[in-house]
Amino acid sequence: MKNIYLLIVVLFKIGLAFPQSDENIIHNIYNEQLTNSPIYDNLRYLSKEIGHRISGSEQLEKAIVYTRDLMNQYQFDSVYLQPVEVSNWQRGNKEIVRFIDSTYLNRNLNCIALGNSVGTTEEGVEGQVIEVQGLNELEKMDESLVNGKIVFLNESMDKTCINTFNAYNKVSIQREQGATKASKKGAIAVIVRSLAINNDDFPRTGYMAYEKGAKKIPAVAISTNDADLLSKLLKEESTIKVYIKLNCQTNPNVHSFNVIGEIIGSQYPDEIIVVGGHLDSWDVGEGAHDDGGGCLQAIEVLRTFKQLKINPKHTLRVVLWNDEENSWGGNITYAEKNKQTNKKHLAALESDMGVFTPIGFNIDTDNQKEFEKIISRKHLFEPYQIYQFKKGHAGADIAPLKKEGTTLIGLITDSQRYHTLHHSENDTFDKVNKRELELGAAAMTSMIYLIDKYSFD
Amino acid sequence: MKNIYLLIVVLFKIGLAFPQSDENIIHNIYNEQLTNSPIYDNLRYLSKEIGHRISGSEQLEKAIVYTRDLMNQYQFDSVYLQPVEVSNWQRGNKEIVRFIDSTYLNRNLNCIALGNSVGTTEEGVEGQVIEVQGLNELEKMDESLVNGKIVFLNESMDKTCINTFNAYNKVSIQREQGATKASKKGAIAVIVRSLAINNDDFPRTGYMAYEKGAKKIPAVAISTNDADLLSKLLKEESTIKVYIKLNCQTNPNVHSFNVIGEIIGSQYPDEIIVVGGHLDSWDVGEGAHDDGGGCLQAIEVLRTFKQLKINPKHTLRVVLWNDEENSWGGNITYAEKNKQTNKKHLAALESDMGVFTPIGFNIDTDNQKEFEKIISRKHLFEPYQIYQFKKGHAGADIAPLKKEGTTLIGLITDSQRYHTLHHSENDTFDKVNKRELELGAAAMTSMIYLIDKYSFD
Repeated sequence: MKNIYLLIVVLFKIGLAFPQSDENIIHNIYNEQLTNSPIYDNLRYLSKEIGHRISGSEQLEKAIVYTRDLMNQYQFDSVYLQPVEVSNWQRGNKEIVRFIDSTYLNRNLNCIALGNSVGTTEEGVEGQVIEVQGLNELEKMDESLVNGKIVFLNESMDKTCINTFNAYNKVSIQREQGATKASKKGAIAVIVRSLAINNDDFPRTGYMAYEKGAKKIPAVAISTNDADLLSKLLKEESTIKVYIKLNCQTNPNVHSFNVIGEIIGSQYPDEIIVVGGHLDSWDVGEGAHDDGGGCLQAIEVLRTFKQLKINPKHTLRVVLWNDEENSWGGNITYAEKNKQTNKKHLAALESDMGVFTPIGFNIDTDNQKEFEKIISRKHLFEPYQIYQFKKGHAGADIAPLKKEGTTLIGLITDSQRYHTLHHSENDTFDKVNKRELELGAAAMTSMIYLIDKYSFD
Repeated sequence: MKNIYLLIVVLFKIGLAFPQSDENIIHNIYNEQLTNSPIYDNLRYLSKEIGHRISGSEQLEKAIVYTRDLMNQYQFDSVYLQPVEVSNWQRGNKEIVRFIDSTYLNRNLNCIALGNSVGTTEEGVEGQVIEVQGLNELEKMDESLVNGKIVFLNESMDKTCINTFNAYNKVSIQREQGATKASKKGAIAVIVRSLAINNDDFPRTGYMAYEKGAKKIPAVAISTNDADLLSKLLKEESTIKVYIKLNCQTNPNVHSFNVIGEIIGSQYPDEIIVVGGHLDSWDVGEGAHDDGGGCLQAIEVLRTFKQLKINPKHTLRVVLWNDEENSWGGNITYAEKNKQTNKKHLAALESDMGVFTPIGFNIDTDNQKEFEKIISRKHLFEPYQIYQFKKGHAGADIAPLKKEGTTLIGLITDSQRYHTLHHSENDTFDKVNKRELELGAAAMTSMIYLIDKYSFD
């Protein structure tokens, strides 16, 4: 009798006697994050010691080394750098947007060049400003009204959207395509209202591109407060002129890396479940929410598997993509290179909506059976205040895997604060709450655990 | 035909042609808050211009006038002050807790007297420190170990609780009753670990009381960082002594007011639906989250009804209670005074969990039918990311109405950040997000709208 008791104790200790329930394992994952996670200190290092890290920059190279070393320190089965060619756009000296006539003579507006914009000439550019509310209005305008002018795209984010990403997605096109649409009607530059849900003095940069063949005119964002001011002044004095000087330029692409770490699957080593974020950021703030926190959450998923001795059936792979902000250089190359292997991506999970309290998952798949399998376990997340499981856009970095048939999943976080700091000087480590960051890592780990266990039989 | 069309337009404009759906009305309530609410500016004024406002203070009197004037400005049907007798505990000069022997000779610890504590003598008190992990451990200790010493109650908040209020509720008893339990064993003072979910240098005050007949010994909190330091040192040098000097004292109660405003019900003027918060705060920080924001959300409920021309069947009453933090002076008096009238409280809704993103409602009622009625409309809140409807503690200020049979409801907000700032210098306006504050007011207004329309037939 005593021997049987001893045997049970020994088996229990090595986890063989009573396989743990999913509830227990998820509970352990959350406890590990909330009491024992290094993620907050790691994000402090990435944000404060390395700082922002645009693709092509020295800081990004430092971040690549730092995160690779972390994965080695956590003894992932395989850690390596994947060569990729990435953008090398540089801002140069601080840009200027200035009133040159008006009651605000020579007052500077809070501004920042949009990513990928051309610079102005050394002398800068000056011109009369014409305000339009978004691209639809611009499209309808007669060329004669726009020709030779600076177009001020002032459509604002819709504050009535509960999820602020819906507001962002409705108007981001004016930032992305505004310069092309305006130059086609003869504009000499565009000023874009910052994509912010609040009113403040922080201008927001972000991706823009020129259509092939379009004349490349300078594109700059101004803060929401200054956009309101400019709009108000234009109602009073319709002939206001401004001066713009941008010092940015696009240099030839450079060689860099995606950072990859793996735990090899015990049953299906060639079937991959990916979890990741993008290691590059814009060249302002610290890239703490976008997307330093998301990268470190992805690393935590694998670290937590190892720490809790959960052996995945499939290979778990963390990928920290390069150059998401400027040109998707890292994620497109990643997806293409994988096609040349015998490995298959079953699922991919991304955290790139700010490391705030997790509230759900967007699921993007054509495989209705897999969608329903994931949904069928949503009750396991409800004790952790995660209720939203819905079809939706999962993330930019995993999007290129969709063609392969991969099930894409995006962590949804509480979005109320994200668009007060996104792409601005305000995206700094002090805006990150330790528990919110940890809860996100725990939610992601729990999702990967369930997918590895139940999906794709 | 033309006349009929005109008639429909006119009826539609005055809202008679097609009664709006609940979905539409709730949508309008949210839009009003997210685009047109004065609440953020009002909270800025209350927090920055008036500041913290402990019961008995001049600032609280200013806050009473300010909020009464707001309700008058919004043209509520009736606005008045209800006389109440309230606590008048005063901190006096900054308190001191200091190492007097140890490797940290004469180093001050970050400390704050607990609310309602007696002061020390002019000379202060010094003694050897004995650490205990909460009241259960203290209860079991032999008196000889405690007698003549300073008891250091160091039980920490459980970081694995997803809702941080659960962690708070598990250990708050050591703050509330620690002095009494320790003095019964001969202790000369208590030092309490701050009730914070994070590690920082901000000490947290909060309610404590002495049991009748117990010897009143000084009670002071130290920051979580300093609690960890003291605990570490005690493991190295068990004879560490500290010096404590508290300058606080309890003065005789003073006369003050609860602030009340009403919209009179069109069908049941004597049946009241209450919504409120407490206007007093601790005497540190700005009382922005606790509970300035909650008070202003309650005012917004009635302002939004008026703005959207929703006529309630029952009387809606906003009550801003006095003296919640020190002795419940305001809310107990309020409940007692109401008994002397012919008015009945059907339901009461409180916001006092921080003005973060709303995620649900705690419902406290013995009336199962009313509980189920409320639950049956939870789908109306899901588009607004509110999913939690459960039985639970609704709030301290409305608790005295339970005896009357009132259905009590508490707004649940995302709790991750609350216990990083609660009862400390850190509870300031800059920690409030405008949209989160507005979403709370919208959720409360929507709940009151549904209760007025459907409950208590």
